[in-house]
Amino acid sequence: MTDVLSTTSDLASTYDAGRAYELDRAHVFHSWSAQAEISPMVITRAEGSHVWDGAGQQYLDFSSQLVFTNLGHQHPRIVAAIQEQAGHLATVAPAFANGTRSEAARLIASHTPGDLDHVFFTNGGADANEHAVRMARLHTGRHKVLTTYRSYHGGTQLAVNMTGDPRRWASDHGSTGTVHFFGPFLYRSAFHATTEAEECQRALEHLEQVVALEGPSTVAAIVLEAIPGTAGIMVPPPGYLAGVREICDRHGIVLVADEVMSGFGRSGRWFAVEHASHGAGVVPDLLTFAKGVNSGYVPLGGVAISDAVHATFAHRSYPGGLTYSGHPLACAAAVATIRTMEDEDVVGRAERLGADVIGPGLAALAAKHDRIGEVRGTGAFWAIELVSDRATREPLAPYGGSSPEMGAIVKGCQERGLLPFVNFNRIHVVPPLTTSDEEVREGLAILDDALAATA
Amino acid sequence: MTDVLSTTSDLASTYDAGRAYELDRAHVFHSWSAQAEISPMVITRAEGSHVWDGAGQQYLDFSSQLVFTNLGHQHPRIVAAIQEQAGHLATVAPAFANGTRSEAARLIASHTPGDLDHVFFTNGGADANEHAVRMARLHTGRHKVLTTYRSYHGGTQLAVNMTGDPRRWASDHGSTGTVHFFGPFLYRSAFHATTEAEECQRALEHLEQVVALEGPSTVAAIVLEAIPGTAGIMVPPPGYLAGVREICDRHGIVLVADEVMSGFGRSGRWFAVEHASHGAGVVPDLLTFAKGVNSGYVPLGGVAISDAVHATFAHRSYPGGLTYSGHPLACAAAVATIRTMEDEDVVGRAERLGADVIGPGLAALAAKHDRIGEVRGTGAFWAIELVSDRATREPLAPYGGSSPEMGAIVKGCQERGLLPFVNFNRIHVVPPLTTSDEEVREGLAILDDALAATA
Ligand SMILES: Cc1ncc(COP(=O)(O)O)c(C=O)c1O
Ligand SMILES: Cc1ncc(COP(=O)(O)O)c(C=O)c1O
Repeated sequence: MTDVLSTTSDLASTYDAGRAYELDRAHVFHSWSAQAEISPMVITRAEGSHVWDGAGQQYLDFSSQLVFTNLGHQHPRIVAAIQEQAGHLATVAPAFANGTRSEAARLIASHTPGDLDHVFFTNGGADANEHAVRMARLHTGRHKVLTTYRSYHGGTQLAVNMTGDPRRWASDHGSTGTVHFFGPFLYRSAFHATTEAEECQRALEHLEQVVALEGPSTVAAIVLEAIPGTAGIMVPPPGYLAGVREICDRHGIVLVADEVMSGFGRSGRWFAVEHASHGAGVVPDLLTFAKGVNSGYVPLGGVAISDAVHATFAHRSYPGGLTYSGHPLACAAAVATIRTMEDEDVVGRAERLGADVIGPGLAALAAKHDRIGEVRGTGAFWAIELVSDRATREPLAPYGGSSPEMGAIVKGCQERGLLPFVNFNRIHVVPPLTTSDEEVREGLAILDDALAATA
Repeated sequence: MTDVLSTTSDLASTYDAGRAYELDRAHVFHSWSAQAEISPMVITRAEGSHVWDGAGQQYLDFSSQLVFTNLGHQHPRIVAAIQEQAGHLATVAPAFANGTRSEAARLIASHTPGDLDHVFFTNGGADANEHAVRMARLHTGRHKVLTTYRSYHGGTQLAVNMTGDPRRWASDHGSTGTVHFFGPFLYRSAFHATTEAEECQRALEHLEQVVALEGPSTVAAIVLEAIPGTAGIMVPPPGYLAGVREICDRHGIVLVADEVMSGFGRSGRWFAVEHASHGAGVVPDLLTFAKGVNSGYVPLGGVAISDAVHATFAHRSYPGGLTYSGHPLACAAAVATIRTMEDEDVVGRAERLGADVIGPGLAALAAKHDRIGEVRGTGAFWAIELVSDRATREPLAPYGGSSPEMGAIVKGCQERGLLPFVNFNRIHVVPPLTTSDEEVREGLAILDDALAATA
């Protein structure tokens, strides 16, 4: 089904799905792909938690595209804000002040933990992390950045070197000052631990050792995803983030929480660091965001900055920037997204969706399907580990790769009208936070069928 | 003047200029600035080549913001395309195909020189350059990147290290594989040349030597702005780009043209590399763009890729990406921008604006004002060098800094309702390509007055 809204506008020709496909293959270079070996599905229409392909087939989107359409597709308040801002003042340069940018910054600061009250806007997650590292380096006068294996921080050179997954390898020349350590992950423990408490304690000891052996005075920042996302949604054990905070404090290291995927309600809190706080209140020095901040309707990311780091650049120029920092159109989408989240308690909804629907639903699937090795997550942020053997935990696809078995499950989902998020041997259940309970149940039933059909 | 379009929308509170300023100072972290020492002008409204501040004062924008509003502010066709796309399909992930992205890629490819027919979309110029370098490194199997002094390539770690201006220094740890060489710049020749032909020949000999001494087999790419922008709008002498192309060919080096500022009509051609071609047809292997591609209405950048580099990634996965690659809303703005440029011969208009109005106008100013040391440019892309002494060419502000004299001229322009683009001792005249002859003359008259008043 093509959806011709207008035949006289500049976009008229773009509604033809066949033409969209042909021109894509002729002219669009796709990320993370071998260009001659892909055959991308054309998306012609989307609404709420559904998208439609060029043949009119409907799909329930359990991936939120790339885990960013937190309020679903075509949310009327976000669309209205973009249209209003476009008609009023689409763009101004970063050096000026602008009401939409100011209000977006205020709203973000009102939800970030602690004194993370200053916002530097970027276009996405990668550049947010790049700038956070620059701030940390200049704040501390140190160079090294410690990040975890099993992480993703973005596609630019520094961000991809911070990344702890195979996407780093092709760009890793050992020259960006990044050092990788192991975070807690009991299911595949690097520390031979058998309980969450033991995993937590050993992971902290390991980090303490890495810091000691790298030299505390050489380490500018520890950067970690508050809940690692693409790498497997490993909710850290209670106490882990507080322990990392304590190590940072003791050594004068800047703690950067990458909340690009986990932030803005995804985990059932405004920010995933808040799960660790249980009273203690872990506040990072810098917090990076993107995606959910405006449901991805316009490219936007940023760094929320503590008073102390801000003070470093009060009378000393911050040596960084970008043409579209604080773009009004992107900020308008953020204003509408955050206001909607407040008015409709979207964060509470995500928490309940996890506790009442996704969590129990995936547990029920695990009870039926031997290939589900573990279910883990929170809010609208869940992963299942698929294994060929529950005892050995042998993954159904190798680290960094795919397998016929995983391919068949994904195909089974798609044929039944479900778009899953897949990474190696895992399927993530990361729908829009606004997906209805019933839609989530439908999606889980499809996953059930696809697993059964390929058993 | 605040311009309240709506009092019930999510954006209602953003129209108050006083509040915009207060919240900016409380929550917005500005690029390239000492946060406690700035007092940004609030922009509340804009149209065509004019913007208005919070007090209702109107300014003629001779900077195109940051040299990106090539079709001016609030162009109705671009606004309409954004509004239509927002209402139809604001966003899809990069792995899918999408009509708007396909059409934007087709239109871009139809204007890029030679076989640069494949487009990888990014969010801006910095990430475009980062990805171009990755492609060049993997295509050649080499690591080093040669770039010019007096250049700007972006604010992320690799891009800022490619940069040849003081914005690099704070982030330069000598670890990104970048090497700087001198480009042609007769007015401040690094080669003791006295004619353009001599400057060209010596600059090419210099580059040849740098390549020889760095080791040709270690050099992945030579990246240069086809016409250096922020660094001073130094139009290269005839033959220079062809000479660089020849050096690249001889040594198997990828030639990357950074057309982020110079592209999409700014120079009076679709792309500035075309000035060098005069029949010879210099085609880079990769061409990076942003800004003018959609007049900056939605963050967008990208890399146009030759068949040969594309072939490298036909059956080998390109190891790079970003969440918003080919964002439909950004691509919709590109489609409307490029179509408008075609329909209204905006590129021809820019060429005439330079030849008939800006060039002669600035020459007339130079005849009156001793402090103008040189006038140079093309299209809607001009610079004047301000000097304290025409004979010694002593700049009116030091390299990398400012001076009371420059500050007074800028203030004089602003007080008279003109927003100039300023860099060190230079004022650039870079209005929207759609600025009327009369408006340009008004702006030049203001510049004349400001120079006279501060003489
Ligand atoms: C945790 C995390 N950090 C950073 C990024 C990079 O964001 P972007 O793709 O917008 O550059 C991602 C993207 O998926 C992410 O999940
Ligand atoms: C020539 C050139 N390259 C790259 C960039 C960086 O683009 P962005 O600010 O969108 O990252 C700029 C920005 O001014 C530029 O002028």
